[in-house]
Amino acid sequence: MAPEMLPPGSVIGMLGGGQLGRMMALAAARLGLSVHVYCPDPDSPAFEVAKANTIGAYDDEAALAAFAGRCDVVTYEFENVPARAAEVIAGRTLLRPGALALATSQDRLVEKTFLRTAGAEVAAFAPIDGTADIDAAIGVTGLPAIVKTRRFGYDGKGQRKVESREALAAAVAELGGGDLILEALVPFALEVSAIVVRSATGTTAVYDIGENSHANHILKETRVPARVGAETAAAAAALGRRIADALDYVGVLGVELFVIREGGGERLVVNEIAPRVHNSGHWTEDGAVTSQFENHVRAIAGWPIGSVETIAPTVMENLIGAEADAWATITADPRARLHLYGKAESRPGRKMGHVNRLDI
Amino acid sequence: MAPEMLPPGSVIGMLGGGQLGRMMALAAARLGLSVHVYCPDPDSPAFEVAKANTIGAYDDEAALAAFAGRCDVVTYEFENVPARAAEVIAGRTLLRPGALALATSQDRLVEKTFLRTAGAEVAAFAPIDGTADIDAAIGVTGLPAIVKTRRFGYDGKGQRKVESREALAAAVAELGGGDLILEALVPFALEVSAIVVRSATGTTAVYDIGENSHANHILKETRVPARVGAETAAAAAALGRRIADALDYVGVLGVELFVIREGGGERLVVNEIAPRVHNSGHWTEDGAVTSQFENHVRAIAGWPIGSVETIAPTVMENLIGAEADAWATITADPRARLHLYGKAESRPGRKMGHVNRLDI
Repeated sequence: MAPEMLPPGSVIGMLGGGQLGRMMALAAARLGLSVHVYCPDPDSPAFEVAKANTIGAYDDEAALAAFAGRCDVVTYEFENVPARAAEVIAGRTLLRPGALALATSQDRLVEKTFLRTAGAEVAAFAPIDGTADIDAAIGVTGLPAIVKTRRFGYDGKGQRKVESREALAAAVAELGGGDLILEALVPFALEVSAIVVRSATGTTAVYDIGENSHANHILKETRVPARVGAETAAAAAALGRRIADALDYVGVLGVELFVIREGGGERLVVNEIAPRVHNSGHWTEDGAVTSQFENHVRAIAGWPIGSVETIAPTVMENLIGAEADAWATITADPRARLHLYGKAESRPGRKMGHVNRLDI
Repeated sequence: MAPEMLPPGSVIGMLGGGQLGRMMALAAARLGLSVHVYCPDPDSPAFEVAKANTIGAYDDEAALAAFAGRCDVVTYEFENVPARAAEVIAGRTLLRPGALALATSQDRLVEKTFLRTAGAEVAAFAPIDGTADIDAAIGVTGLPAIVKTRRFGYDGKGQRKVESREALAAAVAELGGGDLILEALVPFALEVSAIVVRSATGTTAVYDIGENSHANHILKETRVPARVGAETAAAAAALGRRIADALDYVGVLGVELFVIREGGGERLVVNEIAPRVHNSGHWTEDGAVTSQFENHVRAIAGWPIGSVETIAPTVMENLIGAEADAWATITADPRARLHLYGKAESRPGRKMGHVNRLDI
């Protein structure tokens, strides 16, 4: 099929109605594209900025089929879209990014294997499908190490750091006994992100590399440019492009990388990839010529990519739980660019909004 | 009443569902505020990005009252809100900008009288309420002159340029025989806009002055900075502030001014004011730190004003009628920031979108 640009007025389907879906919907609206959000939660933040909504479960094939039938392209805000849901949709309309990206990023074992094949360095890893695998896995990774569920982990959930064989055995039992992966600890100096966008015609662009810091396993801040050497930044961007190309990817891809400092130099290890707009790319809403949200929409609509150039050095700070209560103080700083997600209920650990601060 | 900041989750009511309402709604959503749009047209562009919609006439008092009862503040995208509608709303919730701004800007005679009282130079003008006024009016303005309806004119509608007494008499008859104003022709070198924002606590800020050019009486392009002297730009901003203060204004106010060049200097004559976000402020979406839409929302919500600083010189081009068919070409320029309004039907003279081009 020849690449085709969806005209204004086309309908973008969105699986997931959280803040990422909301920000993609706002970007789509600005381009004259309509949005239909599909989400099981009737209080989804994206619903109130979309033209149409479906409250439906991700395993309701009839609802998914009806939804897909009303959309010119469907995308998603989270990588845990069930494979069957992706199949139902892809049988009826365009699904972007495609099934390969979903399948690869849903399973840490598949993901790490893919990344290594694509030429990226990853932490040493081994599968654990039962207690019988424990010794062999430790033989690959050494100790301490991190044991993780292969699927459905995020923000530090579904993982344990273990320092001994006994602790690992206990963690394996606690995490379900199988479908696990053991990963070597990476002695990284800092974590960075490459936010890559790849068009339907295979053109790629990478935003300036961001430097991430976390609190309680949740992203707290992204700073652009990252405080790494120019060669490291270029290498991170090149890795991002290579991974997007290997997945024949369409849309925005988030790539998290560890920077290891040794012998006076810097080395990159890919931590994980996310087949979607990414929290560490939120700075682009104010700090780049085109936001990651708009570029994701442009890519999946078959449009050319907008400039990813940085306007000014930017720091993005997540507002988590009660931190968003400071909204009034934040608005008093005329340069603080406040973004709130319209979530009625604040809970500890819940992402309520973010602030971008530009150095211009 | 002490100034109060409406918290996130508050409902902004919007009279009018066109592109201005749509862009205000998008700005409100980014700040975590909800939007309820009221418009008679079921195909309103703003409906699809708002949390709630009412399809209602502007003289349906029951519908207006119900709408106002669900909103924490109500604003509007057009100055021709009927006085009675404004009263019904203001009796039930906050109306911003207030009734004085509406009454002043709805009637060219009231507006020009107000502007002169506020210390602004305006074109010589005189009312025409019947043929008996024609000679006296010409005595004030001279000929040629422009006769206009006092109310409901926009984009050159409801006005005629006249070169003779006979032509004026004919135009007066054609325009209804009364409720008219005759204005002297102003020999201006160019037209500029001051986009002013005034907070609920009386703080004002003015964006960099823009230079407007028109085609067929419709704004075609706004260029920032305007090609005028620094003193002229400062004087335009000062006039904008003075007018906003005199109206005890809350929100964004558009002030159109003529620049007259004579004797090696520049002089300003105020053409008209618009108590709302303004087409000549669309450049601020990409070219300023905070857009006029966000600053209008911030002001009416009782929030402090965001920075109005210019990021880079910007040219805004309106896409009128079939010009929007060039969307695919425009997207191929990675620096062109395309905005489309989601209007299904393109008609000659209809504003379909705009493009901002930044020189960075």
